[in-house]
Amino acid sequence: MLRVNGDRLLARLRELARIGATPDGGVQRLAFSADDVAARQIVAARMMEAGLHVRADAVGNTIGSSGQPGPSIVLGSHTDTVPNGGRFDGALGVVAAIECAQALGETGFATALNIVNFQAEECGVRGSRAWTGALREEEITEAHDAIRAVGGAPDRLDTARRLPGELRAYLELHIEQGPRLEDAGVQIGVVSGILGMRRLTVLLTGEAAHAGATPMARRRDALLAAAQLTVAVNETVRNPAGESVATVGRMTVEPNASNVIAGRVELSIDVRALDSAALAALVEELHACAGRIALETGVGIECSDLGGVPPVAADAAVMAAIEQAAAGLGLSHQRLISHAVHDASLVGQLAPMGMVFVPSVGGLSHTPHELTHDADCLNGANVLLNAARLLRAE
Amino acid sequence: MLRVNGDRLLARLRELARIGATPDGGVQRLAFSADDVAARQIVAARMMEAGLHVRADAVGNTIGSSGQPGPSIVLGSHTDTVPNGGRFDGALGVVAAIECAQALGETGFATALNIVNFQAEECGVRGSRAWTGALREEEITEAHDAIRAVGGAPDRLDTARRLPGELRAYLELHIEQGPRLEDAGVQIGVVSGILGMRRLTVLLTGEAAHAGATPMARRRDALLAAAQLTVAVNETVRNPAGESVATVGRMTVEPNASNVIAGRVELSIDVRALDSAALAALVEELHACAGRIALETGVGIECSDLGGVPPVAADAAVMAAIEQAAAGLGLSHQRLISHAVHDASLVGQLAPMGMVFVPSVGGLSHTPHELTHDADCLNGANVLLNAARLLRAE
Repeated sequence: MLRVNGDRLLARLRELARIGATPDGGVQRLAFSADDVAARQIVAARMMEAGLHVRADAVGNTIGSSGQPGPSIVLGSHTDTVPNGGRFDGALGVVAAIECAQALGETGFATALNIVNFQAEECGVRGSRAWTGALREEEITEAHDAIRAVGGAPDRLDTARRLPGELRAYLELHIEQGPRLEDAGVQIGVVSGILGMRRLTVLLTGEAAHAGATPMARRRDALLAAAQLTVAVNETVRNPAGESVATVGRMTVEPNASNVIAGRVELSIDVRALDSAALAALVEELHACAGRIALETGVGIECSDLGGVPPVAADAAVMAAIEQAAAGLGLSHQRLISHAVHDASLVGQLAPMGMVFVPSVGGLSHTPHELTHDADCLNGANVLLNAARLLRAE
Repeated sequence: MLRVNGDRLLARLRELARIGATPDGGVQRLAFSADDVAARQIVAARMMEAGLHVRADAVGNTIGSSGQPGPSIVLGSHTDTVPNGGRFDGALGVVAAIECAQALGETGFATALNIVNFQAEECGVRGSRAWTGALREEEITEAHDAIRAVGGAPDRLDTARRLPGELRAYLELHIEQGPRLEDAGVQIGVVSGILGMRRLTVLLTGEAAHAGATPMARRRDALLAAAQLTVAVNETVRNPAGESVATVGRMTVEPNASNVIAGRVELSIDVRALDSAALAALVEELHACAGRIALETGVGIECSDLGGVPPVAADAAVMAAIEQAAAGLGLSHQRLISHAVHDASLVGQLAPMGMVFVPSVGGLSHTPHELTHDADCLNGANVLLNAARLLRAE
């Protein structure tokens, strides 16, 4: 089994954590911000240091290539963060991927390899969605300057699209962002699939009226209809029980006064499921619930589908390579599902995909308290390295 | 049958409508504002013009007295308005009451009569609640200057309290604020009772968490619990069907993001019923629902009772006097329930109470478009005048 240069990997992780560092030990590099651009420039320099040829595609994804011909193994993740985020989400995967390329180069193991730092993962996986052709031009209207600052060509977005045959496989190392590996005392998670996600915005239009003078039977109460829909969303996804989840997390009420029946409510529905058919069936069932509640309450209910990210299953051969690498390194491992969306959700539409998860202390993520121990970072990078080599050697 | 001086009444109503007039024909005289104080001073002057002795009680209610001894007939309403309100809500009742006193004085009919312009009806019936002793000192902390400006003594609030024996009867003329009289083509509404009201604020504390990564069974979703409670509030009050109403009109969600399970929700419940037992039973049932939902969802639910206004039934003899006056004037009339709270809700706890309603065009109120035709204003004032005389003559 090969090993990455651990000291160098951890030093590069620390280097990246200083860009956009927050006083409480976290990091904030919002996509397209000055700190995000600065981090991408550092990553490009480290790719060059690893002997890679660096370019940017149209959306500004930074791609380091080994220069070998043929369908490539792609390793990637992202360096943007959520507001007030942590040091490991995304950054670990990018730094480890560079380290893998450098280690493979140093051992003289020539292979078609691409390392990718994807754009704007935390605000709609925009970089990887540009690869599948799902990114719309209006989604980057505000970001043209930041995209140009990292070498992108935002007015030629269509050129960022990748065709399935170009990629041999995609591998991404990521922190788990949940407590399952830590709870089980397992070192490596082998992702078997990533839930797909659909987002709806629902506008409910009733009639604002006096809370005293309006008899119950004559009301068109937008908040009551919204409450019925929220309960229905929950019941729909719990029956039958499974991996699917659905959430109403946002609700705004007008006029929002204790003595006035609500005339207008807007709410969000976030639905996730492990396969496309289940996701489509859930969304269809929610539309049916909305229609039924609109009829019963006299409240107008209008659902807008904001799109989402399709579910994806990991590739059997890629999972086997990850498991073989972990076993060879003497690391315990288990399969698990990713409930959070990743760049792998999109690249997995184009190529055989696999993800390596490492434990998050306390399951925490998207917070300055996010922590993955050094040993786990290195374990993950070593699994990534050897899995990449195994896939190439097949 | 006696008649009020119609021209004078309408001129005084127009005079009052100029104070705090809004460009779209409405009025805004928020309780304790400069315009509210100015309107109260005009009213005091008109009371003097009607031959009354004018004083203010501790909370700043303006009281014009005929000076006759013994338990008095009290006629009153209020001159404050809601934000962007209309010209008739409250003002009609005050102007008509003064007109009644002046008409009775001019006809030489000596009687113990008090005309009252109550303080701050539109923000918690505070003036009339001072009469029943239900107003707490902290509710007028911000209003001391405005109360002093109209002759009140806010640091001696307890002296505003009235004892039941001091009042022979209370009569209030008010616009209906609903469409029932207009729909029925009836000129005079004889109020048979006023719904009581209780307000609760409910705080739901769950756990904010990732909308993807948190399985349905492990959630403590504050917005789902809030939705279940909103549905339960509606079911509780509809079963059995009756005059009772309940409304969740206000709901605020934290963090209110589409991909985060809500950790905290605050909502309001407004419950109204025609008798105290029904109101208490409804509130008790809502507490039981909250307890059940808290157990089922693991969400903490804390209900704070903000108090309210008790229900009140109109007095049979007062209703009979109103009906006799209407019949004597050749006016059509019908009994109806007031779903909105009035000063009569409070004064009715102290004395036999009756209210006279006149039609609101289109049922509109609390808007600049609020309108009651001149003829209906005069009809109402004439009924008030003759009912007062009939009650005194008994």
